[in-house]
Amino acid sequence: MARINDNYLKLKAGYLFPEIGRRVREFSDANQEAELIRLGIGDVTMPLVPAVVKAFHDGIEELSRPETFHGYGPEQGYNWLSNIIIKKAYNPLGVELQSSEVFISDGSKCDTANILDIFDLGNRVAICDPVYPVYNDTNVMVGRSGEADSRGYYEGITYLPCTAGNNFTPALPQGHVDLIYLCYPNNPTGTVATKEQLQAWVDYALANEAIILFDAAYEAFISEPDIPHSIYEIEGAQKCAIEFRSFSKTAGFTGVRCGFTVIPEDLQAKTATGEKISLNKLWNRRQCTKFNGVSYPVQRAAAAVYSDEGWSQVKKVINYYMKNASLILEGLEAAGITCFGGVNAPYIWLKTPGGMTSWGFFDKLLNDCHVVGTPGSGFGPSGEGYFRLSAFGGRENVQEAIKRIRDKWGK
Amino acid sequence: MARINDNYLKLKAGYLFPEIGRRVREFSDANQEAELIRLGIGDVTMPLVPAVVKAFHDGIEELSRPETFHGYGPEQGYNWLSNIIIKKAYNPLGVELQSSEVFISDGSKCDTANILDIFDLGNRVAICDPVYPVYNDTNVMVGRSGEADSRGYYEGITYLPCTAGNNFTPALPQGHVDLIYLCYPNNPTGTVATKEQLQAWVDYALANEAIILFDAAYEAFISEPDIPHSIYEIEGAQKCAIEFRSFSKTAGFTGVRCGFTVIPEDLQAKTATGEKISLNKLWNRRQCTKFNGVSYPVQRAAAAVYSDEGWSQVKKVINYYMKNASLILEGLEAAGITCFGGVNAPYIWLKTPGGMTSWGFFDKLLNDCHVVGTPGSGFGPSGEGYFRLSAFGGRENVQEAIKRIRDKWGK
Repeated sequence: MARINDNYLKLKAGYLFPEIGRRVREFSDANQEAELIRLGIGDVTMPLVPAVVKAFHDGIEELSRPETFHGYGPEQGYNWLSNIIIKKAYNPLGVELQSSEVFISDGSKCDTANILDIFDLGNRVAICDPVYPVYNDTNVMVGRSGEADSRGYYEGITYLPCTAGNNFTPALPQGHVDLIYLCYPNNPTGTVATKEQLQAWVDYALANEAIILFDAAYEAFISEPDIPHSIYEIEGAQKCAIEFRSFSKTAGFTGVRCGFTVIPEDLQAKTATGEKISLNKLWNRRQCTKFNGVSYPVQRAAAAVYSDEGWSQVKKVINYYMKNASLILEGLEAAGITCFGGVNAPYIWLKTPGGMTSWGFFDKLLNDCHVVGTPGSGFGPSGEGYFRLSAFGGRENVQEAIKRIRDKWGK
Repeated sequence: MARINDNYLKLKAGYLFPEIGRRVREFSDANQEAELIRLGIGDVTMPLVPAVVKAFHDGIEELSRPETFHGYGPEQGYNWLSNIIIKKAYNPLGVELQSSEVFISDGSKCDTANILDIFDLGNRVAICDPVYPVYNDTNVMVGRSGEADSRGYYEGITYLPCTAGNNFTPALPQGHVDLIYLCYPNNPTGTVATKEQLQAWVDYALANEAIILFDAAYEAFISEPDIPHSIYEIEGAQKCAIEFRSFSKTAGFTGVRCGFTVIPEDLQAKTATGEKISLNKLWNRRQCTKFNGVSYPVQRAAAAVYSDEGWSQVKKVINYYMKNASLILEGLEAAGITCFGGVNAPYIWLKTPGGMTSWGFFDKLLNDCHVVGTPGSGFGPSGEGYFRLSAFGGRENVQEAIKRIRDKWGK
């Protein structure tokens, strides 16, 4: 009989967000009058901005006429999109890239998962804890780990705890690792890394000939100067880092689907016999064989994000969300709840009051306040006792949620 | 140093279509006045139909207003799309499915590649020859094969030759295999399988507890009655087959990106210890972890394909292409060239005149007629001496291409 990939059976329970969805549906079915406020899954709520809407429509119009119709596009995305990304998102940071180094995709979730295709199973992987579950689960699914222990740590993966004790900046790994996932601004903790901190990671990677997988999905939310938006602002990073970016949070594309991955031409890894191979060429082969490019109108819409008009509209939405974040921070702190993040990221990472477990707080918040958040322990064992709230709600919902939480826990 | 996935190095040359692109660019650069006609890569040329365009625009309008905005959709696709697919594409064939059995994706190329994620590397795979290169290359990339031999056959994969001798219907495998790729109507040969022929495959799969991976991307082009459109028209197939379908060719979505995969709830494969596991559940876990759903407006556009208005418009475009196919068939046969396919599929599979090799004919057709086609050998060693022309061109281009070929080879 055909055999399944047994590695899937090692995965604990369901993927985090479907499990949240299940509990919320159960609650809603039993409490149909309850007015739920969802600050859980990091989904945006504001509509697409007008410049993006116009370009999206224009893209469809092109597909509706024979003389402007486009069929298959390049698997790597259109050059006009890569080029505007380089010009608007990288050059102002002092980062130079070629369009062949930018691969347009249907989102960072896919890319951070699929990138494992081009690496040998023998590579040692380091993953922060807490972390976006996709990094961990995809490594388990591909067979890079053994079973999970009682904490939820999988054998063979190096975990890097991020706690209030180390200000959510993990220490460098004790031993050698080959692949390192970093996400800044961080999901779920909402914290950022300074240039000096990222330089230490790049120096480690160069010294250990390791590859950093840098997820910068939230870079547009950085409000403080001097915080790096890209790993490539760090000296030497083009020789050791892949960067993932997304339009999902930046421009409200969670339902539109577009992101991109940067793999510098200088980036190499070795074969079994020690020959050095370009990772850019390998990823290109992967995408040409397993992917067929991003929807043309979506790419037109994504390019409009970087038009002057589009960017100023998108920036207003980001500011709106970040005002939510500061309201949540103030409200929770006024209720005596300890909070992190929320300044350079749309996530507030709070310590659960009264020493509750993360899922305990989830259930209490759902049942008593009708507010949905995300249990910190769902992001890894070091997230236990923490909880993530997202700033992506509408203003009234955010204010109402804070009020309910203050009524419940405030002094 | 980080290690690459060495399996990629086993792949011969580039992926077929990029290699064609390279040769065409080289020719065009050297012959800028030449009017090229592209009947090579299976890309459509007719614009999206009006009903699809309208729904696509409407989907964007929803995303432009806060009260109708949609963020993340279900990783499996929206139920309203799965349900209309079941009602319009399966129920009329006598096939019953549940919406949980239909997974919407951004295209069949991704799905036929990604499906390997849920299967153990130890499964023995059978692949037709010639074949859509993705099936073969993705198995090599994931490490299921050894090196290629001088013919281009990879060690450890069971190849099923399809030749004029067996009317392009392969014999059942001699030994045991676990996964079998079938594509009908066939790419590249344009031939179809009867119910009796598919029943033999289903009987083999049930007897061997194997899984059939059935690619039905071209089912909308079937013109003859009694030719099955779905593997599930065959008794027992829901216990042994996964079906892939696409909007790419059916509705001109090659640049829009939408397809779907059907995995019946009854479908199982076993673990290392012999326990039977639902493949539907495994694929669901895969999609939830590695995929984030299809663009909302694209799903709205796809649903419109199955509206009464949309389907009648789409059907007209399909008929237009199939008229092209019959013109190509007539023209080539009048020039004394032996042809297959072209009746229930938009591909004509021709025997190269004068015993030329496939790439020899490619270069000659490009240089002498300025017509681009696809070398049969690019689809596998049994494709050597054959050549694929696609019927997706505009009528004038198709007629001009036939004229040039008849002028060159006609008697």
